[in-house]
Formats: sequence, C-alpha cells, structure tokens
Amino acid sequence: MPATRPDQAFSARLDEAAAATERLLDRLLTTQPEDGEIARPARLVEAMRHGSLNGGKRLRPFLVLESAALFDVPHQQALMAGAALECIHCYSLVHDDMPPMDNDDMRRGRPTVHKAYDDATAILVGDSLLTFAFDILSRPETHPDPALRIALVSALARASGVGGMAGGQMLDLAAEGRFGKVRHGEKEVLQLQAMKTGALLHFGCIAGAILGKASPAQHEALSRYGKALGTAFQIADDLLDLEGDAATVGKAVGKDAAAGKATFISILGPDGARARLRELVADADSALSVFGERGQMLRQTARFVAERRS
Amino acid sequence: MPATRPDQAFSARLDEAAAATERLLDRLLTTQPEDGEIARPARLVEAMRHGSLNGGKRLRPFLVLESAALFDVPHQQALMAGAALECIHCYSLVHDDMPPMDNDDMRRGRPTVHKAYDDATAILVGDSLLTFAFDILSRPETHPDPALRIALVSALARASGVGGMAGGQMLDLAAEGRFGKVRHGEKEVLQLQAMKTGALLHFGCIAGAILGKASPAQHEALSRYGKALGTAFQIADDLLDLEGDAATVGKAVGKDAAAGKATFISILGPDGARARLRELVADADSALSVFGERGQMLRQTARFVAERRS
Repeated sequence: MPATRPDQAFSARLDEAAAATERLLDRLLTTQPEDGEIARPARLVEAMRHGSLNGGKRLRPFLVLESAALFDVPHQQALMAGAALECIHCYSLVHDDMPPMDNDDMRRGRPTVHKAYDDATAILVGDSLLTFAFDILSRPETHPDPALRIALVSALARASGVGGMAGGQMLDLAAEGRFGKVRHGEKEVLQLQAMKTGALLHFGCIAGAILGKASPAQHEALSRYGKALGTAFQIADDLLDLEGDAATVGKAVGKDAAAGKATFISILGPDGARARLRELVADADSALSVFGERGQMLRQTARFVAERRS
Repeated sequence: MPATRPDQAFSARLDEAAAATERLLDRLLTTQPEDGEIARPARLVEAMRHGSLNGGKRLRPFLVLESAALFDVPHQQALMAGAALECIHCYSLVHDDMPPMDNDDMRRGRPTVHKAYDDATAILVGDSLLTFAFDILSRPETHPDPALRIALVSALARASGVGGMAGGQMLDLAAEGRFGKVRHGEKEVLQLQAMKTGALLHFGCIAGAILGKASPAQHEALSRYGKALGTAFQIADDLLDLEGDAATVGKAVGKDAAAGKATFISILGPDGARARLRELVADADSALSVFGERGQMLRQTARFVAERRS
C-alpha cells in the first residue's frame, strides 16, 4: 500500500479536531445550569447551538491544538481553550451577520441566527457566546494553574475586544465609507485585517504557548507564525472573494469589490497578492524553525490556509 | 453643630464611589492600546465612553466597594472589580436600548448609543464593553493572586451570561409574548428578575467576599443579602414604573403595564409589593448580622434601594 500522503494525514487531523471541538461544545451548551447560574432558557441555548454547532473548519481550535501539541499539553486542556476561542469567533459571526452590520441571510449553508430566530435573540446569542468563552477559560478543566487560566483570559480579551477583533470590525465599517469617505493604503488594510481577522488566529497560536509554558523564544516564534498566518488567511480570503464561487465558499462573494473597499488585491493586484501570500507562508515556515520537525503540522496549516478554496 | 445624619453620610459615600468609578473608567477607556492590543479605534472608544461614562448611581460598583470594605480589601482592588461589573451593566443597557430589544432613544437624559452613533456601532460598543470587563478582571491591579482573579472571572461570566443576565433578557422578551402567549406567575417573575437584574447585584456583593477571602459563612451571608437586595431592587423598580414620573426616573415609565407584562405588582398588588419589599429589607438586614456593626453601610444600601425615587 502506498504511504498516506501528508495532505491526507493533515485533512484527517483537521477533521478530527473539528469533530472533537463539536463534541465539546455540544457537551457544554446544554440547558443544565452550572454552579453560579440560575437557569438556562431553552430558546437561548437552542439559538446559541444554532450559532456555534455544525459549523466550519474549526481552524482556530485546530491552531490551539497544534500549537499546544508542540509542548505536549494534555489534549483536553487545548480543546477547552479552543472551544473558548471558537465561541468568540461564532459570536462575532452572529453579530456581524445582523442587518446593521453585514446583513447576511445565510451562513455555512443555513439561515443565520437572526433569520432562523429574530434580531433580539441574535443579539443575546452573541452576548452569551462571548461571555461563555470566558466561563470556559475560567474552569480548572482548561488548566489546573489559575495563573495560566488568567493569562488566557487576558490574551483572549485583548485579541477580541476594542484593541482587537471588535476594533477591527469598527475599522471595517469605516472602510466601507459609512462614517465619511476614506482612502486606505496598504498600512491601513494591514492593521484593519490584523485586528479583524488576525487577532483571533494569533491568539490560537499563542494559546498553545501559554498552556505549554513556552520559553520566551518559543512564544515569540509562535507569535510571529500567528501574525504571518493571519495576514495569509486574509489575502487568501480576498482571492476567494475575487475568484471563488458562492457555492464552494459558502457565503456571498464579490462583495468587497462591489463595495469599493480597499483590500490586499485592490492595493497589490492579484499577482502581487499571490506573491505576498508565498512570502507569508515562507515566513510562517521560518518562524517555526525553533521547533524543528515538530513544527511540521503547523507548516502544513500555513499552506492549507494559503491554498484553501473555501 | 448637629451630627451628620446617617443618610447624609450614606449619600456622600455613594457619590464618592460613583466619582471614583467614573475616574477609573475614564482612565481605562482611552485610545492608548494595552499590551496584546493592536490599536483602539477612536470612534469605538468614544462610543464606549458615551455608553459608560457620566452615568447613573453606580450602585453595582458601590456594592463591590462596601462588601469588600467588610474585609479591609484595598480600595483600588474593589474599584477595579466594580469597574468590570459596571462595564457589564453598561453593555447590557447599550444592547437593550437597541431597536430589536427595548427601542429606547434616551438613557440618563442623553441619546442612547445607537441614536448618538448608529446600530452597528452600538452592537460593537456592547461587545467591547463586555469583553473589557474580563480584561479588567484579568489584571494584577484587581488582585495580585491569579486564583482570586479567575474566581471573579468565573462568577461574573455566570452572573451575566446564558444562565444569568443574558438569559434573563431572553425570558423578559418571552414574557412580552414575542414568541407566543405566556402566563407568568410569581415563581416565573422571581426567576426572570433574579436573572435579568438580580444576578449582577448579587455578583456585586459576592465580589467583596471573593476579594476578601471570606469564610464560607460570610460568603453565604453576602450571597443571601445580595439575593434579597436584587429582588427588592426589582420590586422598587416596578413601583417606580407604576408611580414614578419620567423626569425623575430618567427613562420612560408605565411601559410594563402598557405591555401587559407580569410584574411583582400585577401579581402581588401595590400593597402586597410594598409589604414584600419590607420583608426583603428585613431579610437583607438579618443576613448581615454575622458582620455586626460593620454591616451598617450595606443595611443602609438595602433601605436606599427599597426607597429610591429614581
């Protein structure tokens, strides 16, 4: 029999991580209240599940799992941190899909939360998933040492709040010209994307370093990798928006161009964007050199992110 | 000179706590990014300030300060935990005021965030203030011991998420009949209010116990006090909705009756509600007996909450 090709092993590992994340979220998101809770209303739990289960590639939890694996962190700890990160990602999708933001009716081939339920419920689903992320991180199951748990709380709050993802959303609304005419260059697009998309991907990589008590050099390596990966992810996204078809991508495409919004492609051109993507994958590779052979799975992840078709 | 009347001392202390909370939030909510943040967009910071500064009595931070004072917790630690709690309270007001929820144009005599800015900004302001609460709790300034900080994170997440405040909001929407006809009795109203309003007030009281490393009996006493206070707060609110005028209360009144929503008054009647209020104040008093004379300020707080006119 021929040896399994590396990309098959990679796909299997990605699928396995997605399934494990799904199982964990399914176990956590029930109507059974935890200590300190009063009751969990069925409609809210059901809508939170709609907004977080059966969804996506789970790339962010995968990054936590693979960066944690570099340090032999117990699987369950990495899964918990990954589930928290995915709750933040999912809350942001629920709120972004709402009429005042992107006004999208479909997500991953299903009605968005505000279409399946209603706008008020969608606001509460986002708020509840956001809050739940910090509940998950606070649990001893995430790590027995409270100092590591609080480091995760701090890093996730900063990656996702006013100075990270939420701030990036605000910059993105401004980039659409909603609050007045803007003219963005490469620097502004880089910062916007580093906040809007990059910050959570970056957290996924340093979460492993935090759980694994990485040395400063190892932490820095994963941080550099995470930053390169974040920008690569967004350039690939821009290329998909240009070239992809809605059925494969699973959401509307061509919106950025239609909105006249500055993107890596409008600034670098398609060929320039592809060249930049190759440089970023090379930089992600090189950042991992400190981990030697063990960095193989994260190297493949960078390639996967750059070459994905959906 | 006559001795200062106790209620003057109380008012002065309440005002002082509000001013200190205001100063701290003013210092924390700037465009200067913290470690781990990329940049803080000016528009978002400005709108977060609109939604959190110049606001209200700051009763929740006051509860943290006074419960912490029972254990001689350093003032700054209690202020930090109080500011985090206030961020949660303010985020909930920003989201609740939005058109899909309560659709209120005015709050504390000023335009609500979505009126002063826009709906998309209001969504992001709420998300960012929510996230910021956990950032604040994660800082060493809140307490040098990470185990206490993570205990605060866990308690606040559970008080404010699906099993607490956000869940209570969902029950409140259901109580309006939005998702079908409902008929609530006393038990349902008690649970709804314990979640929607009570959970944050309760957290304010146990935050002091956490920071002060209270004994189990002391923790339980503050928890019982906080529960009685939470229900008393809501009954007083219902009485204000019935009797108050909009100018003093600072928001629209008479809405519950108009919406035909079950309240403590529709169930107990005005006199029954007033009698229940007196029982709850007595219970709050009695819960504090373990603290002897030191509980005086929290006893006055319960009276203040029950008798407030705004």
